[in-house]
Amino acid sequence: MTQETINQILKFRDDREWKQFHNPKDLAISISLEASELLEVFQWSGADISSDKKIEKIKEELADVINYCVLMADVCGLDLDEIVQEKIKRNDEKYPVEKAKGKSDKYNKL
Amino acid sequence: MTQETINQILKFRDDREWKQFHNPKDLAISISLEASELLEVFQWSGADISSDKKIEKIKEELADVINYCVLMADVCGLDLDEIVQEKIKRNDEKYPVEKAKGKSDKYNKL
Amino acid sequence: MTQETINQILKFRDDREWKQFHNPKDLAISISLEASELLEVFQWSGADISSDKKIEKIKEELADVINYCVLMADVCGLDLDEIVQEKIKRNDEKYPVEKAKGKSDKYNKL
Amino acid sequence: MTQETINQILKFRDDREWKQFHNPKDLAISISLEASELLEVFQWSGADISSDKKIEKIKEELADVINYCVLMADVCGLDLDEIVQEKIKRNDEKYPVEKAKGKSDKYNKL
Repeated sequence: MTQETINQILKFRDDREWKQFHNPKDLAISISLEASELLEVFQWSGADISSDKKIEKIKEELADVINYCVLMADVCGLDLDEIVQEKIKRNDEKYPVEKAKGKSDKYNKL
Repeated sequence: MTQETINQILKFRDDREWKQFHNPKDLAISISLEASELLEVFQWSGADISSDKKIEKIKEELADVINYCVLMADVCGLDLDEIVQEKIKRNDEKYPVEKAKGKSDKYNKL
Repeated sequence: MTQETINQILKFRDDREWKQFHNPKDLAISISLEASELLEVFQWSGADISSDKKIEKIKEELADVINYCVLMADVCGLDLDEIVQEKIKRNDEKYPVEKAKGKSDKYNKL
Repeated sequence: MTQETINQILKFRDDREWKQFHNPKDLAISISLEASELLEVFQWSGADISSDKKIEKIKEELADVINYCVLMADVCGLDLDEIVQEKIKRNDEKYPVEKAKGKSDKYNKL
């Protein structure tokens, strides 16, 4: 995701003076609510994405989740690249390639 | 988020041959579960992020949410910049600056 | 669910003097978090409940969800039977038998 | 919650022949989605329930959560009283009164 996209997200917020409402707790709630709307696409449905309707809805709801993630990172003063790369390092230790390859088990079951 | 970070996320998955498990439905479930773990930071707590423990947990869980969002986009063949920018355009229509400025109401209440 | 079970839930809370923490917002968060733990049983898994492990986890997590629902109702002064029966009446109008029979569509698609 | 209410929930489902769609995975998704709709009442809002609108929405969404919990228990062959009472026993061990009284900490921090 380019810096330009991130800037657009922040500009949208600032144009509307919404930062005043964006405390971390309500942003965490919002990420969770948008994640649910994304999940709703698959309620009573298969795991496929064969219909255009499904894919349209996924686009919108996934965008909403990412949008709030960017806003959360901004309010908490976090750098997305940094936190994701740090997490990959931790996951690397929890899920070493030789143990985790081809298995969907949780790390504490490997 | 740089392309390099996105590549690291995909490489982590591919090194472990996990793409076979990553159907869109289970990825949507996973985004939702990680969003809940992020929200758990604020259960029975204020909206602040004053403690180091809280901020550490936010870093980890927010990274997990973004991680799965990248994997979801990849599996669905979506471009993050594109879907986010499209959504901003739609939100621009739903929440015109002159109406939404300084208000936290939902668009259907503006 | 018997009144005795509901009383046990409330007694557990009162013995620990936890009602002071139970504001409706945090209870709503808690219901959502427990619902996620229930959902986690099915992450990367089929829809079946064939393993004993799965069923044990479902028992625990479903109990947690119900537990918080009872606490939420108590704090909000709601009667479970009343709100459920009212909702059934509304759903009866949204999903008339002749239209909804054998279909999993949402009411706005029937 | 009386057996009569539970019977009404099951009758509503059976009148519409919906049991065929009610696999445990999609029911777990549904509980989670309804829990999110309940949580949405408190997005960008205080923890209070002072407005009539809020309380009306809580009634509806809490009823939806309970509704799906009853359907989940039925499909999994679980007795609500039994699983809740079992969970209370476990919680009694995790949160002994003398340690947990007046504290909102998780059991592993007590």
